[in-house]
Amino acid sequence: MSARNAFYAQSGGVTAVINATACGLIQEARRFPERIGKVYAGRDGIIGALTEDLIDTSLESDADIARLRHTPGGAFGSCRYKLKSLETHRAQYERLIEVFKAHDIGYFFYNGGNDSMDTAWKVSQIAEKMGYPVVCVGVPKTVDNDLPHTDCCPGFGSVAKYVATSIREAGYDVVSMARTSTKIFVLEVMGRHAGWITAACGLAAENNGEPPHILLFPEVPFNPEAFVARVDACVKQYGYCTVAVSEGLSDAEGRLIAESGAKDAFGHSQLGGVGQVVAQLIKDKLGLKYHWALADYLQRSARHLASRTDLEQAHALGVAAVDLALQGKNAVMATICRLADEPYRWEISDAPLAEIANVERKMPAEFITPDGFHITEACRAYLQPLIEGEEPPPFRGGLPDYIRLKNIAVPKKLPAFAV
Amino acid sequence: MSARNAFYAQSGGVTAVINATACGLIQEARRFPERIGKVYAGRDGIIGALTEDLIDTSLESDADIARLRHTPGGAFGSCRYKLKSLETHRAQYERLIEVFKAHDIGYFFYNGGNDSMDTAWKVSQIAEKMGYPVVCVGVPKTVDNDLPHTDCCPGFGSVAKYVATSIREAGYDVVSMARTSTKIFVLEVMGRHAGWITAACGLAAENNGEPPHILLFPEVPFNPEAFVARVDACVKQYGYCTVAVSEGLSDAEGRLIAESGAKDAFGHSQLGGVGQVVAQLIKDKLGLKYHWALADYLQRSARHLASRTDLEQAHALGVAAVDLALQGKNAVMATICRLADEPYRWEISDAPLAEIANVERKMPAEFITPDGFHITEACRAYLQPLIEGEEPPPFRGGLPDYIRLKNIAVPKKLPAFAV
Repeated sequence: MSARNAFYAQSGGVTAVINATACGLIQEARRFPERIGKVYAGRDGIIGALTEDLIDTSLESDADIARLRHTPGGAFGSCRYKLKSLETHRAQYERLIEVFKAHDIGYFFYNGGNDSMDTAWKVSQIAEKMGYPVVCVGVPKTVDNDLPHTDCCPGFGSVAKYVATSIREAGYDVVSMARTSTKIFVLEVMGRHAGWITAACGLAAENNGEPPHILLFPEVPFNPEAFVARVDACVKQYGYCTVAVSEGLSDAEGRLIAESGAKDAFGHSQLGGVGQVVAQLIKDKLGLKYHWALADYLQRSARHLASRTDLEQAHALGVAAVDLALQGKNAVMATICRLADEPYRWEISDAPLAEIANVERKMPAEFITPDGFHITEACRAYLQPLIEGEEPPPFRGGLPDYIRLKNIAVPKKLPAFAV
Repeated sequence: MSARNAFYAQSGGVTAVINATACGLIQEARRFPERIGKVYAGRDGIIGALTEDLIDTSLESDADIARLRHTPGGAFGSCRYKLKSLETHRAQYERLIEVFKAHDIGYFFYNGGNDSMDTAWKVSQIAEKMGYPVVCVGVPKTVDNDLPHTDCCPGFGSVAKYVATSIREAGYDVVSMARTSTKIFVLEVMGRHAGWITAACGLAAENNGEPPHILLFPEVPFNPEAFVARVDACVKQYGYCTVAVSEGLSDAEGRLIAESGAKDAFGHSQLGGVGQVVAQLIKDKLGLKYHWALADYLQRSARHLASRTDLEQAHALGVAAVDLALQGKNAVMATICRLADEPYRWEISDAPLAEIANVERKMPAEFITPDGFHITEACRAYLQPLIEGEEPPPFRGGLPDYIRLKNIAVPKKLPAFAV
């Protein structure tokens, strides 16, 4: 059997560690030159496959590939582009297979979240129907931590470490000034549908009374009266109150609080502004001065504070994807399997893409306290290992020293294709 | 000469390294028990002196005092409380002296910015008039970096390192997705009157085309047309555009842009929202999707990413304050004196409080490029050394392990005093 090429694409929102997965995958592929020829990466994700815009990673040095482990963002570009159903958009899938055929792609690695696993699964189906031999392996990645069949998703642990650290640090700031100045601090975090990132903020509160005092989950319908009463009690007891709020906080009817509240001068809803909406509510009801922060992309790109556990898992999953492919395991996703909480032990496993595609893992109800404002011990036991360990990037001139690859294109062989 | 006690207070907004100054000061004072009795700290800053709410730092172990070096926020509490003029509020100053007398305070260390240096200077004056012997020494601290007679101000270097790192990391995120998704990213940073922090963001752009692409300084009146044209050019050239904007960005008439733009549903001006105002302007004019982040307290409490240079200077200034006091140098502030840019060399010096009080150091005009949108090489040469070096805090359970002191009160000896 002669060596066939591999295609790798990054998909959806990028993270602090998705390049660690790319690093592991390319390093592992290079160990098997008799089985795997070149690893081609899709420029800007799957769009690069459709447009035949492939990057030849074999032109990057081993040293530069190693540096991917400590570089945030998506080194080859990513995109939010979901291939539609096989029935209505069969041409797109056929195009993918054409491109694979033109470049002798025998391995398809798709590094992303729910939608991407769905696409990888569909590609494996159409390839089979078309009689084109390709092994399709999904590699998990999402800060939302909502893929099933894996203990956690690479990218999440580092966001978790970042938001918990940030709200702890801000808490030390607020408590210093609270007697005569700002008593309220609100941090808005990502996670529109699931409260995993909000929950992670709760890790900073190891003892009663420590920040964050209140967590506002997307899973818990916002009750303004109960919230304000809790803030009031907090300020009376501790002198200040810190809140972590999910961008996806909604009311009982499922409407986003960010959209229900403030509008700008042009009448636009303020997206990414739920932090300010709940802070302003406190000011209106209790007359307390507030500060708020919006972490936005900072939280998912903060490689300088990545979790070593997350990094190791991200890298290991890239390695495992290649190993699975070489074993001929088609239409599976590499997964993390938890063996023990403390000390945390995990191993790599795999699960069928068919069982993962479009299935969203919700946060268990027993991870949220009965009052809806904090995490339980069970949640803490789950989250804690995921933020353990540090592996700072190299610094140069006082700043993290990240790599930009050369990203040289593979010559095209096919006619253009519009996406 | 018998040992007399010292009084130390933290003032104004806290920083990632103000406790490193406290650490150096207390450690140095403990080396001279024959000269300095106990170091009392004001609970919540100077208010603690007025209300005779003193903290006995001698009850904290050497190990815990050492841990102050890696703990953000103000360990004894701080406040924004400016003593008024000697003429109209003489009673306050007399009260301070009374408290000093009651607790045999022979050394007054005030750790803060412009207002605090003014207060320290006035205290030295009134003490002299009242014939009370006390050595008053100012210790600089302000993320605003606007004190004269010192090369820089402790706290600034760490904010500078944080914002430059953050916008670099966010840039790696945005460029990954820009082809098909968000092309615009805006980071709003502190610095209402001076653009030092905004300028520091510029350090991340080492080569042409690297983020941040545009800096919006409080010193440069905002020109919406020129700004939008520059964003447009950037997106056309690089495919995306990242912007760092000062919370103090103003128009030609000096009105804050944050207040000119958006209002919330209640008609309140959005403070802390200039980032969104300029991002929304881009969306309205160019139709480009944006993300924005508001670093707020995160930037000044991010001890996990502190500059080692900043930490070393903060600690050294605490040590120097004690040494100056023991030399009997009254009414001075300890300062940092730059000896060379590269390699950066500095030494401790001092300057009269009278020349510092209420004097604001502006950013030199030659630090901003002629188009008003970036920093010059001269600015880079000044800023670069201040962010050099890392000294991460210890981590426990995946999070920075910070200290909370016991902060035990000194028994009161005087009647209450209302502030």
